[in-house]
Amino acid sequence: MSLVAPHGGGGLKPRALEGEALAAEKARARALPQLRITSRERGDLIMLGIGGFTPLEGFMTRADWEGVCREYRLASGLFWPIPITLSSKEKIEKDVALVDPESGEALATMRVTECYKIDKAKECEAVFRTTDAAHPGVAMVMAQQEYNLAGPVKVLSDGGFKAKYGALFMTPAETRAQFEKLGWSRVAAFQTRNPMHRSHEYLAKVAIEVCDGVLVHSLLGALKPGDIPAEVRTKVIAVLIEKYFRPGTVVQAGYPLDMRYAGPREALLHALFRQNYGCSHLIVGRDHAGVGKYYGPFDAHKIFDQIPADSLQTQPLKMDVTFWCYRCAGMASGRTCPHGEEDQLQVSGTQLRKWLEQGAEIPAQFSRPEVLEILKDHYR
Amino acid sequence: MSLVAPHGGGGLKPRALEGEALAAEKARARALPQLRITSRERGDLIMLGIGGFTPLEGFMTRADWEGVCREYRLASGLFWPIPITLSSKEKIEKDVALVDPESGEALATMRVTECYKIDKAKECEAVFRTTDAAHPGVAMVMAQQEYNLAGPVKVLSDGGFKAKYGALFMTPAETRAQFEKLGWSRVAAFQTRNPMHRSHEYLAKVAIEVCDGVLVHSLLGALKPGDIPAEVRTKVIAVLIEKYFRPGTVVQAGYPLDMRYAGPREALLHALFRQNYGCSHLIVGRDHAGVGKYYGPFDAHKIFDQIPADSLQTQPLKMDVTFWCYRCAGMASGRTCPHGEEDQLQVSGTQLRKWLEQGAEIPAQFSRPEVLEILKDHYR
Repeated sequence: MSLVAPHGGGGLKPRALEGEALAAEKARARALPQLRITSRERGDLIMLGIGGFTPLEGFMTRADWEGVCREYRLASGLFWPIPITLSSKEKIEKDVALVDPESGEALATMRVTECYKIDKAKECEAVFRTTDAAHPGVAMVMAQQEYNLAGPVKVLSDGGFKAKYGALFMTPAETRAQFEKLGWSRVAAFQTRNPMHRSHEYLAKVAIEVCDGVLVHSLLGALKPGDIPAEVRTKVIAVLIEKYFRPGTVVQAGYPLDMRYAGPREALLHALFRQNYGCSHLIVGRDHAGVGKYYGPFDAHKIFDQIPADSLQTQPLKMDVTFWCYRCAGMASGRTCPHGEEDQLQVSGTQLRKWLEQGAEIPAQFSRPEVLEILKDHYR
Repeated sequence: MSLVAPHGGGGLKPRALEGEALAAEKARARALPQLRITSRERGDLIMLGIGGFTPLEGFMTRADWEGVCREYRLASGLFWPIPITLSSKEKIEKDVALVDPESGEALATMRVTECYKIDKAKECEAVFRTTDAAHPGVAMVMAQQEYNLAGPVKVLSDGGFKAKYGALFMTPAETRAQFEKLGWSRVAAFQTRNPMHRSHEYLAKVAIEVCDGVLVHSLLGALKPGDIPAEVRTKVIAVLIEKYFRPGTVVQAGYPLDMRYAGPREALLHALFRQNYGCSHLIVGRDHAGVGKYYGPFDAHKIFDQIPADSLQTQPLKMDVTFWCYRCAGMASGRTCPHGEEDQLQVSGTQLRKWLEQGAEIPAQFSRPEVLEILKDHYR
């Protein structure tokens, strides 16, 4: 048994340079026009660098963009659920250096092969199923500049993720090597942008019961204001793994993307890049990658049945909402607990934040004491 | 999405007659020589009647027996893990009526096409991995008569299972119809010859989390002396399903076979006939279908990786031993609990029997009160 193949059927295609080629390209970058990119674009670029978006070589052409919006396909015919694009205020039709929005560091060079305009509302309607500016993903697309630039990139940096997160920032080649070392072939990815409470522990453990192991894969890029920062989340996850999981059943890692909140389409992207990381399954919970009330609770389940069966090798592990049930006297889900809401300990993010801010007593059935300790520290 | 196809790729092949054909064959049976069969043979015969052993048409020939013992294959090349044979004290080479060992009712007629001798020790070594007469499966084979009879059967009766178990005794056509009505395609079979305690509930619920539903499938034939009778076990399971599972996630049914205790080979047979019942998965726990210390705890997992990949459509859901863990404060398994045995509530069958016989207090973390109530009644 071996790991799933990277998307597109070939090997991993990391766009990052190394060694002498890297030094030479860094020197060349200094002489190129500088384009300051956005946080989301930076995440996408680093992902291209480490091979997470295999087999993409750079930002999408207009034909790719059109095909992805309309029918989930690149111009080449390959399945792809969300546009990976770069925007620019000015028309650029030559090589350019892509520059970090905060540090000013040159992150990549790009050979611009096409400069085109898009109908942003059309992208939003297709990808987010709404053009409501209150949707954070829509707001992000509508804030893009006038032109989109297409072309292959040579990536010069990891954007500082390795320095900030150390061994947690694993490339797809690194997770694959780790899985092989552990003898895994059936690997479930647990996508997370939150600390892990017992409900998340339960999802991961169900996956461990039926797979060889789980990749707990934290988003390290930006999300909504007020969310818990990645350094706190990954610390919480580390203590949970140490105290409540068996050695050799979990790998923790992080990936550099920002959230798009595209619900079902983002669930497909989550599965696609997990295939590159070597995961055969993706845990897809209730309202996966959703925000507000834009998506039905199981839209991200259904979409996997609506795409052609050969679109992805990585398959969803579809799960319902999970919680402690006092009558079951155990963890359960909307699929396994027959009791009423009054018996189920379901805690909203807002409620939890209030408890943590007030230093209130939080039920052990909701979260492990070691986890709550770290979160309380963060809120103090 | 549709249900898995019956074994062999064609439709179900129940060997039971109906209507006028049944009446005529019953009349003919009266005039035939009568062969009193054993309890195990009766179970196999009823299974042939209801299509559970599709595509077998009757008891195996010498070439089938040889191929099954040596390489898990019928003479036709089709995968089959355990001999399904009929023995006779006398040489018979003509049609015969097969008669119930207890009631004397004619259960079937058989056109004998071959009468042959086997090396019983060879069968035991191949199927049970031992010739130790203390192994109940070995004892059963060694007690067989001198000749084996091969040939197609016409089944005239359900052996009284329908009268005794009512709606619980479902044929493969009936479970398939039920699954289709429920809209299921991914169905996990939970094989059981015991009442269901929380450890079994947990196994079934893990399967429900990742499949459309579970068939709780109780052995209704004979097992070891001292085991709990099927009517008590199925009553326990019914109350557990009613109180602790969501409607529409579980079907309870039973099947007519006796236990063989063949461990890994029997796990394969369990998967094979569950394919006929429409199940895409079989939960295979620790020491599945084992007895004593004859098999390693995971031999029945490993064997699924040792047979050719196209042998069966029904796949194993491999699970470890399951229990309540006081430090996890929840149900867990050998794969998900990192704590020591001193934290895990593991109760042996012997211990449980003692508790029940003494009317002792039994921890709610081991078994549901509604279940214990019925078992205590049985022991009183």
